[in-house]
Amino acid sequence: MQLGLVGLGKMGFNMRERLRAAGHEVVGYDRNPEVSDSASLADLVDKLDAPRVVWVMVPAGDATLNTVADLAGLLAEGDLVIDGGNSRYTDDKTNSELLARTGVGYLDCGVSGGVWGRENGYGLMVGGDAEQVERAMPIFDALRPQGPREEGFAHAGKVGAGHYAKMVHNGIEYGLMQAYAEGYELLDAAAEVTDVPAVLKAWTRGTVVRSWLLDLLVKALDEDPGLAELSGYVEDSGEGRWTVEEAIRHSVPAPVISAALFARFASRQDDSPAMKAVSALRNQFGGHAVHKAGPTSGSGEVK
Amino acid sequence: MQLGLVGLGKMGFNMRERLRAAGHEVVGYDRNPEVSDSASLADLVDKLDAPRVVWVMVPAGDATLNTVADLAGLLAEGDLVIDGGNSRYTDDKTNSELLARTGVGYLDCGVSGGVWGRENGYGLMVGGDAEQVERAMPIFDALRPQGPREEGFAHAGKVGAGHYAKMVHNGIEYGLMQAYAEGYELLDAAAEVTDVPAVLKAWTRGTVVRSWLLDLLVKALDEDPGLAELSGYVEDSGEGRWTVEEAIRHSVPAPVISAALFARFASRQDDSPAMKAVSALRNQFGGHAVHKAGPTSGSGEVK
Amino acid sequence: MQLGLVGLGKMGFNMRERLRAAGHEVVGYDRNPEVSDSASLADLVDKLDAPRVVWVMVPAGDATLNTVADLAGLLAEGDLVIDGGNSRYTDDKTNSELLARTGVGYLDCGVSGGVWGRENGYGLMVGGDAEQVERAMPIFDALRPQGPREEGFAHAGKVGAGHYAKMVHNGIEYGLMQAYAEGYELLDAAAEVTDVPAVLKAWTRGTVVRSWLLDLLVKALDEDPGLAELSGYVEDSGEGRWTVEEAIRHSVPAPVISAALFARFASRQDDSPAMKAVSALRNQFGGHAVHKAGPTSGSGEVK
Amino acid sequence: MQLGLVGLGKMGFNMRERLRAAGHEVVGYDRNPEVSDSASLADLVDKLDAPRVVWVMVPAGDATLNTVADLAGLLAEGDLVIDGGNSRYTDDKTNSELLARTGVGYLDCGVSGGVWGRENGYGLMVGGDAEQVERAMPIFDALRPQGPREEGFAHAGKVGAGHYAKMVHNGIEYGLMQAYAEGYELLDAAAEVTDVPAVLKAWTRGTVVRSWLLDLLVKALDEDPGLAELSGYVEDSGEGRWTVEEAIRHSVPAPVISAALFARFASRQDDSPAMKAVSALRNQFGGHAVHKAGPTSGSGEVK
Repeated sequence: MQLGLVGLGKMGFNMRERLRAAGHEVVGYDRNPEVSDSASLADLVDKLDAPRVVWVMVPAGDATLNTVADLAGLLAEGDLVIDGGNSRYTDDKTNSELLARTGVGYLDCGVSGGVWGRENGYGLMVGGDAEQVERAMPIFDALRPQGPREEGFAHAGKVGAGHYAKMVHNGIEYGLMQAYAEGYELLDAAAEVTDVPAVLKAWTRGTVVRSWLLDLLVKALDEDPGLAELSGYVEDSGEGRWTVEEAIRHSVPAPVISAALFARFASRQDDSPAMKAVSALRNQFGGHAVHKAGPTSGSGEVK
Repeated sequence: MQLGLVGLGKMGFNMRERLRAAGHEVVGYDRNPEVSDSASLADLVDKLDAPRVVWVMVPAGDATLNTVADLAGLLAEGDLVIDGGNSRYTDDKTNSELLARTGVGYLDCGVSGGVWGRENGYGLMVGGDAEQVERAMPIFDALRPQGPREEGFAHAGKVGAGHYAKMVHNGIEYGLMQAYAEGYELLDAAAEVTDVPAVLKAWTRGTVVRSWLLDLLVKALDEDPGLAELSGYVEDSGEGRWTVEEAIRHSVPAPVISAALFARFASRQDDSPAMKAVSALRNQFGGHAVHKAGPTSGSGEVK
Repeated sequence: MQLGLVGLGKMGFNMRERLRAAGHEVVGYDRNPEVSDSASLADLVDKLDAPRVVWVMVPAGDATLNTVADLAGLLAEGDLVIDGGNSRYTDDKTNSELLARTGVGYLDCGVSGGVWGRENGYGLMVGGDAEQVERAMPIFDALRPQGPREEGFAHAGKVGAGHYAKMVHNGIEYGLMQAYAEGYELLDAAAEVTDVPAVLKAWTRGTVVRSWLLDLLVKALDEDPGLAELSGYVEDSGEGRWTVEEAIRHSVPAPVISAALFARFASRQDDSPAMKAVSALRNQFGGHAVHKAGPTSGSGEVK
Repeated sequence: MQLGLVGLGKMGFNMRERLRAAGHEVVGYDRNPEVSDSASLADLVDKLDAPRVVWVMVPAGDATLNTVADLAGLLAEGDLVIDGGNSRYTDDKTNSELLARTGVGYLDCGVSGGVWGRENGYGLMVGGDAEQVERAMPIFDALRPQGPREEGFAHAGKVGAGHYAKMVHNGIEYGLMQAYAEGYELLDAAAEVTDVPAVLKAWTRGTVVRSWLLDLLVKALDEDPGLAELSGYVEDSGEGRWTVEEAIRHSVPAPVISAALFARFASRQDDSPAMKAVSALRNQFGGHAVHKAGPTSGSGEVK
């Protein structure tokens, strides 16, 4: 079928390739003319036959909200917009209500798979009306991995459910990554274990902890032994934060996901005000030798 | 090759089947005569041709230590004992030193795979001398999953390294399970997501969080929708505790693995003394209405 | 000086007493006529001489927002409203902007001290313009504990700063309470320590952990040995959640405060969906005996 | 009464001063002849009248164990040794059993108060036989703060109970410090609050979070505004680790105390292997721009 695709960055570009390989007609638009198939959003809309389906694949937040608002002014009754970005699920209500005013449908779709999705397919979680989901199914079927549909695609619920599921997916991802990372650091610290990469590789078949993330960790250690080329500074991109906020909203204990998030925050701090305060307290009550800002040495103990 | 196998419980029994299917001669011993191939440990040793290889697959702790001590009195120079149980890595030193007095070799082998190992093969992590590892390789090759050896087997280091790696494996496992569990609870709590099992199933291909544990969660929800037949009381079996203790010993931050462990502890408490203390404090300073032991009601607020 | 006081619940009632004892003229209003000095909010405003100062002490959220909105319609240029409730700091902007339209000033004041404040005085943190703070200083001086002003009162910053400081105060409080509670539970579990209340009491002078909260825990154990009359079900009232949300917003690691918050969430769950999921996973991969919903028994182990 | 005191470091020196000020006769021994009252441990024992009481105040672990072993060879039936150091409670069994062979009594005494103890007195928690405790009471009474005995002294239980209680005291201390520290960092990060030291100072009277540690934090910020002279590198000295290990042994959830401990571990890491692993994973699946070892820049996002 025919699809308009707004946003041809790392994700959108690859998705266009996968969709075309599956025989779909994709008209892309990106601000970068080198990758764009159309001159403007208006041009994109012109190039599509009504009723149109337009997939938005731009950064979450204002970029997505503005793109949807622009589309609301260009599309017509019976058209459909799908937001495949990492939007916060609360934005979906805004988008769907805006589009509904002119009879344009809306689906939100959480997309997982990263740069590997072009080849392996993307895991998809969709929110919105069943009728609209059915209409876009050929697109979902082309994007999702081969195999049974339900193993790479879900109609998760009403509008917002797709991004909600993707948010939780990423929250879990934070926890999984941190669990492997803590184990890796411990293996690395233990004198007993002399071949850490071999141990991780031996876990990739048969064990309880086998997973795609483990495969990637093995691959990373193979490409960069000791991870010598990386620093321990880790960004976070929103969904982890939102997941903890939602956990709070629903009174759901989330000690693991929040610990993973806070570990990232801490990884980005050179000199934490909190730990300076702890240091100050130890100094105050114990006369503990503390590390001064700048070159340091020494240690002492009083209880 | 020929192997003595002590302990034919859920794990040992299945391993005997897998080894025999691979053409090895296994003489098993278990206290339960219905599954045992020999009348006693001494009888088992008698039935084996020297130099013997005896695999111990009994509960960690005293049972394993006593079995190895008994074997030390029965085996002869040139024989080899492999402890495949979930022993603490510090026990391996005890065992190997005891056996070394009479020239008996020792390997420790962490085994992962659970009840699925008989069919899928077991992930194996081994500690000890390379020569002994090589000697037992036909057994390891039969037990590990099919595929490249290094994807289901590692010679992790010296004596103790196998169990150390298995310990960390299980610590990671705690973290992974808790991460999925928190995500599951949050999806369950969110009104937006109306088909939680479908979302989890859609994650099994293509997504970043795909894993064997996720497959099992999907299976569990399929067999017992809403997990209605289970309570939230979760045991732990040692390795999670040891992992945190090792993290402390090596000054490795382990917020996720420890949070997963503590969540299990908390799951087994009906009425936590700690939370009663928090409740008492709130009552003291705020005149907060608190939940009394027994039927409760009401709520209040003072700051 | 003269003060209008809206809300005569546990906090407001005590504050009126303390203010009157200090010689101030307080005209109170409460929906409960038994404690109210005026028949309505309008009546309260009528009873005050311009320029008026009205202190709002009602539940945070809609009750406070609505009260301020009502006051906005009743007060006149030059009047001043002080919100002493546990409002979220973001509400202060709403309130101050609304009142500013008619030239009414606004201060937000975090108040700590609980039911003990009437006797001991209240710790006060205030946000707003210095001029307005100065104007209300006689009230603040009467409410705060005796001693140097700066040890019980702070002008924390602009509008919102008072409630922000109070929010963080309460977040810290969550962490402190949980720290004592964990220690209490551990002492309680240890066979070595046979007189837990005596230990806690011995900490109240001279030690590093001495504090008012510790005094209260000692008092609680004195009044209810073993805390036998309490359940471990612990409510939370908002500020702990907001603190973690603010920590996330500012990328500040808050492992302790969040752990304390999540411990409360968990204390309120009979059967946690997350722990049921962990239980289901253990059952799937290990054939672990799991606790079924309903009467349970048994245990098993497979790795 | 007469007391031998071994170890005249920061703690022992101050305790000798306090004991002498209370009229007791203290014969001290330290390897440093400048502060020592005796030439050797044997000389110390010679200088005391039987039955002797010797207080050991040296670093925990080997130093204490060796000192007690040396005393076992020098003391006689009816003498008493008190270990006032920060020993692990498990060492007390070793010490008491060794001394019991020659009829020498043993008490373990947890001591809290730091460098302020000389002036304020020390909080004391004692383990051992009631008879021996009674015998040493004049010493305990001189060391503890003025006021009711039970507010600065406890006979916590049998041998080991004193150090157990001190261990838990310090575990709680870790949690308290981290709670204040997180709150401090959040206040510091918030644009709303413009006078953080004033807020902390305003909490020192009347509020729920008032404590001695808070007083010290106020003092630290007063002496070193912004804590500019300190780094965020924080040592730990054993009891925090032991507390978490004991929590694990007793299946007591300790999320706050462990989080505080791990925050210290993390504060000492420049480049965490765990966070490098997380970074590597993000890079693998997302093509996320990651921070390389060395000068870095940029950011990207793929999901």
